[in-house]
Amino acid sequence: MNSDLTTLFYPNSIAVVGVSSDPRKLSSIFFTNLIDAGYKGGLYPVNPKYDNLFGYQCYKSVSSIPNEVDQVAILIPSQFVLDVVKDCAAKGVKSIMIISAGFGESGPEGEALEQEVVKVAKEAGIRILGPNIIGVVNTAFKLNSSWMQLFPKEGNISFLSQSGAFCTAILDISLRRNLGFYNFCSVGNKADINELDLINHWYKDEKAKVIGAYLEEIAHGYDLHKYLSITDPIKPIILLKPGRSEEAVKAIASHTGSLAGTSEIIDALVSQTNIVYTESSNELLDDLMSFSWSKQVKGNRVAVITNAGGPGIMATDAIVGNGLEMAQLSETTKEELKKILPAAASVHNPVDVLGDASADRYQQASDIVLKDENVDAVMFILTPQYITEIEDTAKTIIRLKRFSAKPLFAVFLGQKYVDIGIERLFDAHVPVFNEIEFAAKAISDLYGFHQMLNSRDLDTNSKIFNDFESLINKGIYNQEIEHHASKGDGVSVPDTLAFKMAKESGLDMPAQELCTNLDQAKLFAGAHFPVVVKIPNEFLAHKTEEKALKVNIKDEEELATAFSELHATLDKIGQSGKPLLVQEMIKAEQEFFIGSNRDGDSTVYNGGKSGFGHLIVYGQGGIYTEIFKDLTHTLVPASRTMFEAKLAKTKIDKILNGARGLEPLAKDKVIDALMAVQKLVALYPKIASLDINPLLVTQDRAVAVDIKIYLKQ
Amino acid sequence: MNSDLTTLFYPNSIAVVGVSSDPRKLSSIFFTNLIDAGYKGGLYPVNPKYDNLFGYQCYKSVSSIPNEVDQVAILIPSQFVLDVVKDCAAKGVKSIMIISAGFGESGPEGEALEQEVVKVAKEAGIRILGPNIIGVVNTAFKLNSSWMQLFPKEGNISFLSQSGAFCTAILDISLRRNLGFYNFCSVGNKADINELDLINHWYKDEKAKVIGAYLEEIAHGYDLHKYLSITDPIKPIILLKPGRSEEAVKAIASHTGSLAGTSEIIDALVSQTNIVYTESSNELLDDLMSFSWSKQVKGNRVAVITNAGGPGIMATDAIVGNGLEMAQLSETTKEELKKILPAAASVHNPVDVLGDASADRYQQASDIVLKDENVDAVMFILTPQYITEIEDTAKTIIRLKRFSAKPLFAVFLGQKYVDIGIERLFDAHVPVFNEIEFAAKAISDLYGFHQMLNSRDLDTNSKIFNDFESLINKGIYNQEIEHHASKGDGVSVPDTLAFKMAKESGLDMPAQELCTNLDQAKLFAGAHFPVVVKIPNEFLAHKTEEKALKVNIKDEEELATAFSELHATLDKIGQSGKPLLVQEMIKAEQEFFIGSNRDGDSTVYNGGKSGFGHLIVYGQGGIYTEIFKDLTHTLVPASRTMFEAKLAKTKIDKILNGARGLEPLAKDKVIDALMAVQKLVALYPKIASLDINPLLVTQDRAVAVDIKIYLKQ
Repeated sequence: MNSDLTTLFYPNSIAVVGVSSDPRKLSSIFFTNLIDAGYKGGLYPVNPKYDNLFGYQCYKSVSSIPNEVDQVAILIPSQFVLDVVKDCAAKGVKSIMIISAGFGESGPEGEALEQEVVKVAKEAGIRILGPNIIGVVNTAFKLNSSWMQLFPKEGNISFLSQSGAFCTAILDISLRRNLGFYNFCSVGNKADINELDLINHWYKDEKAKVIGAYLEEIAHGYDLHKYLSITDPIKPIILLKPGRSEEAVKAIASHTGSLAGTSEIIDALVSQTNIVYTESSNELLDDLMSFSWSKQVKGNRVAVITNAGGPGIMATDAIVGNGLEMAQLSETTKEELKKILPAAASVHNPVDVLGDASADRYQQASDIVLKDENVDAVMFILTPQYITEIEDTAKTIIRLKRFSAKPLFAVFLGQKYVDIGIERLFDAHVPVFNEIEFAAKAISDLYGFHQMLNSRDLDTNSKIFNDFESLINKGIYNQEIEHHASKGDGVSVPDTLAFKMAKESGLDMPAQELCTNLDQAKLFAGAHFPVVVKIPNEFLAHKTEEKALKVNIKDEEELATAFSELHATLDKIGQSGKPLLVQEMIKAEQEFFIGSNRDGDSTVYNGGKSGFGHLIVYGQGGIYTEIFKDLTHTLVPASRTMFEAKLAKTKIDKILNGARGLEPLAKDKVIDALMAVQKLVALYPKIASLDINPLLVTQDRAVAVDIKIYLKQ
Repeated sequence: MNSDLTTLFYPNSIAVVGVSSDPRKLSSIFFTNLIDAGYKGGLYPVNPKYDNLFGYQCYKSVSSIPNEVDQVAILIPSQFVLDVVKDCAAKGVKSIMIISAGFGESGPEGEALEQEVVKVAKEAGIRILGPNIIGVVNTAFKLNSSWMQLFPKEGNISFLSQSGAFCTAILDISLRRNLGFYNFCSVGNKADINELDLINHWYKDEKAKVIGAYLEEIAHGYDLHKYLSITDPIKPIILLKPGRSEEAVKAIASHTGSLAGTSEIIDALVSQTNIVYTESSNELLDDLMSFSWSKQVKGNRVAVITNAGGPGIMATDAIVGNGLEMAQLSETTKEELKKILPAAASVHNPVDVLGDASADRYQQASDIVLKDENVDAVMFILTPQYITEIEDTAKTIIRLKRFSAKPLFAVFLGQKYVDIGIERLFDAHVPVFNEIEFAAKAISDLYGFHQMLNSRDLDTNSKIFNDFESLINKGIYNQEIEHHASKGDGVSVPDTLAFKMAKESGLDMPAQELCTNLDQAKLFAGAHFPVVVKIPNEFLAHKTEEKALKVNIKDEEELATAFSELHATLDKIGQSGKPLLVQEMIKAEQEFFIGSNRDGDSTVYNGGKSGFGHLIVYGQGGIYTEIFKDLTHTLVPASRTMFEAKLAKTKIDKILNGARGLEPLAKDKVIDALMAVQKLVALYPKIASLDINPLLVTQDRAVAVDIKIYLKQ
């Protein structure tokens, strides 16, 4: 990955191919945007039809420009783009933006053209942004190399969007909020430069403090997961990614021509990395604002200061509902509040300073509350009573923000009359919201990021990825797997081989033996009664109505009966004489489920084109796993701690811990099993999916009594 | 319930007690608000200190006013209020608003004063609003009898709020949205007039089309539930009610001095009535706007017309996520769209008219989509591209709304530049949102209300309530229950009595007999093996470590052993010679849970002070009921259909229906059991709580093998 995107955001010179003098054309808007933003570098319109455009000398081609050209923006129809790119290669251009559409998103022909263009550019060491984009903005360089009508204010947020149109909506909102951006770009078809390139670039650029992204699909999931897990400095990445519904996934496919990651994968990615997930444009903006402007939220205890009781109660719901806590004010704080507040005021959190509160009363109450060591953050709520000093209260909060070490958030409920206060707060970079719930969500996201930062150990993560990658394709039985996989996609691994692979990975399996006759079975079963006898799956080529399983066989007599019945079944399905599997029977205390699905193909861990690799799904097992869906998801590789933390989100975790006075079950063995499954998919990345249902958990074991493995290249 | 609140909203004359000439006093604001809004009736300031105020003759007392006085607003300190109310009674006043605070919300002394005031008023036939309120607004009567600085626009929404301060926030937002109100009031302590009085009043008033409410607790839950279930016309009631978290419930108690209904009760109430539940002030406003302005949403198939692909995808998520469907456009529609849209546009839903769409292109696409019979509602999405005709597109949507029979909703994403379009839409009463998710939620709420309207059968509901009430306290064993209840709160009913009550109510119970000796037991068990033997709970006065239960007793020999062991236990706990309970043993197919808790006291169904009565909780049973919480809630009385509809929201419903190819279980018997429990609590309203865990469900029975009943007055 050539990560040098400097000439994309800091070009010393720019050529724009296809500039027109027609004010209705995008190309003229594009060029005048560059002029209007005050760009100071060399600027070269390219169009053989003109000698001069907007006071600039116009060139026939990029190569005919006498000076060096860092960046070229191409705005001509797609069929002419390849020639221009070749010309750029000859000229020694550093980066190209293909603004035009008509490539990969338009069908196979466009896709082929896109690949050809990228090939030419790669050979010449040129990075390409696009095709099908709005362009790039860098406020710190007075660069508006885009056809966006809006130029954002300068700030510390860098933003990338897979939808060009959505950029304009985001900017329109940000202008009202006085929210500043550093870099801003759309990535379009991501033929070359993708979100990982940009994140890597912004990680290294000190001016980018907060990264925002609107993505419909993620290009190289595993690489992104790895990069975010092991790279310092860790910056917050605020992500808006639609596609939670099947219908939306379909719409994405028709919009971008690519497959969106499932919502389970995205959930796992978010919980394992520094990505902050948002579900709507307002939530995205709220988080960009809060991460850009707020001090760190180092604890989850929030105090509310409000001039209205009702909204104080709503804030309580919102704070608790977002996983935060209502701060328990100290006795000293309450005593001091009593001294300065009217008798009818509430000195408990939410602190109700009453409807007639002046700005000064807010100030006095805040001075006291902010000193309280039990308070990590303060949420101010204002409703516009007749006597409320809206603007002055805003100014008070602005001063408090400047002088307090604790993070402050404001909620001004209303619109027409409170707007003056909201505007003041925006201008002073105080996070302010028109809805209590939004403020609580933003505080919660800030706190979650702080927790993540503190718990994250990049060295450990590097080791986890190294260990995982060192196992890739190293399974003892890889030749056999290769053989089975060659039979086609979706083929299942024979039970006996699956058993050996599971053993190799460290899964606790029931003692078992493949028995060709009853005597052998008696010998094995003698040490293991009660046992289970089954016909191995490889002899059940087609689905059969016959019973292929006998359980709870307690003695030799029952064993003999089982053998004769299953032998009869074998005869019936034309598999006479095949051996039977005799297994130690595990007494179930609790049925657990572990499954895994691979995203991308089997080369995903060593340079494969795309995909996140294996997602491990686990939780309550049994026949109703799919109905109860008490499951959680983890992307590999993950640490024991991560598996355990995600398991804690399931209900079955409470049962493993010993609910209702029952003895705890072997949760550490469950985690062992998850680690073993992780090892298994590393040893055999050709595993497309696997199911362990059930993993039987007792007080001292977690035994995989049944494992099914399916392969795909 | 004297429901005549006419003089509250349409007083022919008003006296304001405590008016001052000091412009800083609330009382002067209150009086001048009346003047400023253009009130045409008689207006009488009352204050012995003045002869004349604001050009009006000032009176020493209400009784000294020579003309009739319909309404009196009292703004003097609480300790002087009782005398004024007595004076009002003497004068023959119709309604009183006590604006002043210092009553029930301030402690026991204030509570006593409040009760005294209400008593005097009731005796004189006067209705009281308050104390501790902002006042009342009636835009249709130019009445601003409040100290709110904001006077809403005229409209069809009537709103009541338990928080005065929150009123001002709502009005401030509504002014920006051009959202009109009809009546508006705060209810404060609800000493007399409460939400049910107001809803009843607005049900009868044709000018009120939509009712909105902010409530922290509900005064007479059962009465409200009944009223909403049986009363025509059914109007939408948009409710915002905090208190989902325990912390918020505590805050409500300290704010209003009263207990909030649990969130389970509110969820049940909402699902059983025409209440539309909202969780935030924006959601409340969005629904008020949508119900006030939109045509009915008669189907759930939504078409999206957007100038941006990304937001189209977000809309898909939001629509599906809110229980609606993406409309499947007909082939004709798609063909026609292809003719008028550029090649790159998407003619599937979401219809992408592309970033360069003009207002005219929106119009053309809409004309086609609105004709499609597969489309029930249309959501327009606009992002501000350079070429977007923001204002003209708004005007197009306004015209479409006027000429289309289908409901239309607009989402204008952005803020600064799109504002002009949003303002146009607000002015023309087109529901418009700045967030896709909000629009989808509002459409979903409208559709839900329409479904409720269509499925609601008021006659059936009346019958259900009549039947239920006819059973109240009619249990055969009520004398025994009375006797047990008199022992104190929380006492449990003996197993044997509980069994008889359950039988009486129609619950399917295991065959059982109380056996004083082994011979009797053998006789009974002979017909029922396998059986269960247990010591009845009434002999286990204290918790015992001894085993009081023997299961799966298959023959007389095992029965004898069980008897001798349990008799030994009886000896040990000093209960020698007591009989044992022998029960038919039911083979479990699925464990189900039914529980019930009473809200309010045992007089709740016949004029009790407050409470919703019994909430029936049901779902997955077994020892982990509390962990899995696969439960749903229904307020009594409910129909079989309602019990079944709520059951469908649980996961266990799928198992009852026969998941994974298994035989369906006796779901109709489960509903029978729920109906029986409903009958049980009607026969014995003293039941404070009961637990049936498990109700064992087989393919043909649903048997309550264990029922525990607790009493409370």
